[in-house]
Amino acid sequence: MRQPVCKNLVPISHCAEHTLNPIRKLVDNLKINPNPDKSFLRLSIGDPSVFGNFNPPPEVISAVSEALTTSCYGYVPAHGLVAAREAIAQYYTTPKSTLTSEDIYIASGCSDALRIAMDCLGDSDRHILLPRPGFSLYQTIAGNRGIPVKFYDLDPNNNWTVNLKQLESLIDGNTAAILVTNPSNPCGSAFSVQHQLEIIAVAEKYGLPIIADEIYQGMVFEGDSRSFGELSDNVPVLSCGGLAKRWLVPGWRVGWLIAHDRHGRLATVRGGLTRLCQVIIGSNVLVQAAIPKILANVPQSFYTATLTKLKKAAEILYSELQDCPQLRPIMPQGAMYMMVEIKVDMLEDIANHMEFVEKLITEQSVFPLPANIFGIPNYVRLVLTVPEDILREACHRILEFCAQHKAKVLRKKSRTDISPMLSS
Amino acid sequence: MRQPVCKNLVPISHCAEHTLNPIRKLVDNLKINPNPDKSFLRLSIGDPSVFGNFNPPPEVISAVSEALTTSCYGYVPAHGLVAAREAIAQYYTTPKSTLTSEDIYIASGCSDALRIAMDCLGDSDRHILLPRPGFSLYQTIAGNRGIPVKFYDLDPNNNWTVNLKQLESLIDGNTAAILVTNPSNPCGSAFSVQHQLEIIAVAEKYGLPIIADEIYQGMVFEGDSRSFGELSDNVPVLSCGGLAKRWLVPGWRVGWLIAHDRHGRLATVRGGLTRLCQVIIGSNVLVQAAIPKILANVPQSFYTATLTKLKKAAEILYSELQDCPQLRPIMPQGAMYMMVEIKVDMLEDIANHMEFVEKLITEQSVFPLPANIFGIPNYVRLVLTVPEDILREACHRILEFCAQHKAKVLRKKSRTDISPMLSS
Ligand SMILES: Cc1ncc(COP(=O)(O)O)c(C=O)c1O
Ligand SMILES: Cc1ncc(COP(=O)(O)O)c(C=O)c1O
Repeated sequence: MRQPVCKNLVPISHCAEHTLNPIRKLVDNLKINPNPDKSFLRLSIGDPSVFGNFNPPPEVISAVSEALTTSCYGYVPAHGLVAAREAIAQYYTTPKSTLTSEDIYIASGCSDALRIAMDCLGDSDRHILLPRPGFSLYQTIAGNRGIPVKFYDLDPNNNWTVNLKQLESLIDGNTAAILVTNPSNPCGSAFSVQHQLEIIAVAEKYGLPIIADEIYQGMVFEGDSRSFGELSDNVPVLSCGGLAKRWLVPGWRVGWLIAHDRHGRLATVRGGLTRLCQVIIGSNVLVQAAIPKILANVPQSFYTATLTKLKKAAEILYSELQDCPQLRPIMPQGAMYMMVEIKVDMLEDIANHMEFVEKLITEQSVFPLPANIFGIPNYVRLVLTVPEDILREACHRILEFCAQHKAKVLRKKSRTDISPMLSS
Repeated sequence: MRQPVCKNLVPISHCAEHTLNPIRKLVDNLKINPNPDKSFLRLSIGDPSVFGNFNPPPEVISAVSEALTTSCYGYVPAHGLVAAREAIAQYYTTPKSTLTSEDIYIASGCSDALRIAMDCLGDSDRHILLPRPGFSLYQTIAGNRGIPVKFYDLDPNNNWTVNLKQLESLIDGNTAAILVTNPSNPCGSAFSVQHQLEIIAVAEKYGLPIIADEIYQGMVFEGDSRSFGELSDNVPVLSCGGLAKRWLVPGWRVGWLIAHDRHGRLATVRGGLTRLCQVIIGSNVLVQAAIPKILANVPQSFYTATLTKLKKAAEILYSELQDCPQLRPIMPQGAMYMMVEIKVDMLEDIANHMEFVEKLITEQSVFPLPANIFGIPNYVRLVLTVPEDILREACHRILEFCAQHKAKVLRKKSRTDISPMLSS
């Protein structure tokens, strides 16, 4: 009577199969064997909290602490506590873009806000345009949902601005949206207002909405940081942001989507966004309840101090690495990252930037992130949230590594030349 | 040169369109006009925190408070902090089902755990079997992903047990999984171990995995509460749970999926689950960090006290309503709900249970949830987390309402008979 016990593998869905995580895949494939004689310096992790030198301001902690004493236990609307949405609306309102709580959708991190935006606009036959190099999560979300993507290029020789011609050439009747990241992970770039307007003009020409990943908004070293929503006259913008970076609490998982409507074009989208929030019933209420106090009470000096430290880190990296013939660091303008080109031709026994990273780890115990996870070869990304002494030590080792591996013509001279060359 | 400004609606995806929320839809369509002369008694909300009579234990608050002082700001693995996963694994380990941290996937609420489970197993051509009546979120998730569903019936005349024959008749080569809810929202039922084994036997016969929504595990009034994972010899079980109900903090959005593997059949599923967690990068780290202390320190007396209060509420509702000819309350065995059948035939001017609810709100300001949002007609769901005095007042008004609307034959006698009849 009894059936034989089934021992077959339980099959998984296409969705689960196609939910990619480029970082995971890379880290799984990378040979990470640090040199046991040298401390392991991880310049790869985009988490400002790991080294203890970038902590959230006390106002953030006390606001949550207070929420904990005021019975914040229950469900709130899936798209967010009204008081928090009101505070966010007020905080991001500008003369040109007046926002109300109805324009705000609180989500479980900026990641979830991006999920909501991409799920709402993209479809199996409607693609989204992504920046290259770009943050890898966009592909994770697109793969999860089966949304096709196309890549527009950012120009490394021009502060990672958008190649507008090429962007335009990708647009067709099936384009659902243009996704922009500004300031950028991984590039550390920040567009000029002029360039933002050029991008908006392309979107306007084709009647497309913009998904703006603005998790680093406000984090630029010089000049203004303006949101795409604020600058747009006619193009609807879904701006995704959150507490993770500017307030330095990525693990708290609270982000938001701001719907900058124009001409009521987002009427249907709003319903979709609300429903998409209901799939996981929103984010942590303790943190949501703290948002009004966080936005009101954190002093300007905190933001300035963060930027000063980030800029200092960028300057250290840049000045240390700029004279190395095998490298080309690109000075960032904001966010928390710097891209460095690896001139593989000028390195003797290194075929590509993946090998550069593997050998750098094996020999020098320094780990920058290979930029192929962001879609381009021959670059590595360094993070700026690392303490100065570690940054300097990492640069020292990278220079030593480049000197040791520099192309033959120079190297041939004598192996004993290595040390003097290093100090140059 | 300049293009005309596009004023078309931005279209939304199929996904956004098909992400349904039955509760929202119902509440939008329901005429909710409470009687201004009577306080509005909401027996509809499945949130234990709204009335202030079910609060989380102090150990839960202090554990999070402590996490707040120990630099819990950063990203942790998308499927959860190792220490929290270890604590959950230990807490749910039984002699028959030994768990390790590798079996635990922390998610943003039980909802997100259910999303991960359903997304991982269901596919556009592989359906999931859902209970009817059942929690409406399953359909929200299925609609979001485009996963077809079929419904197996629960028998109201037999403590809402599964109609096993009918369940079996729904299974074919495209069945991906059987989803069970135990204890049940909306039924308030709790299966006997015997019945759980019968369900497992059906799954085993067809080689199907079980998704067990066990958010109310441990919340039964009499006898044991055993998880499907613990009882299964050969059937892999994905058990979804969380802090929301037993620890009374639904707004904190921390849940988990426990993979009870059998014969290594979940090898592929595990990778899928991990990737699906990465789409939104997991849940709040403050609460995650508190989990080991929460599971270790909350005393048994807290759980007992909660159950005592819930059972008392069920007894009040049952004893108040059982003699009303127009109603048939079904005594719950666990969870936080009671289903009451509305005998529409015995009500004069009420066509269906939706009208029952609308008129009850308009005349008596009492709001039970119509069970058609759970997939069946002629029932309403009452929640047990309401303070005693409100429950009694609500019952009083419901009885008055039924008396006033009872079918003509009786009513004809005399309108003045109403009050005496009420006290019967
Ligand atoms: C460009 C960008 N967008 C979104 C995110 C995710 O933010 P969150 O942690 O709030 O989900 C990150 C995190 O590194 C990021 O760099
Ligand atoms: C049966 C059932 N499953 C899951 C959930 C959702 O739980 P969470 O709030 O942890 O997402 C609920 C909430 O009411 C429920 O009743």
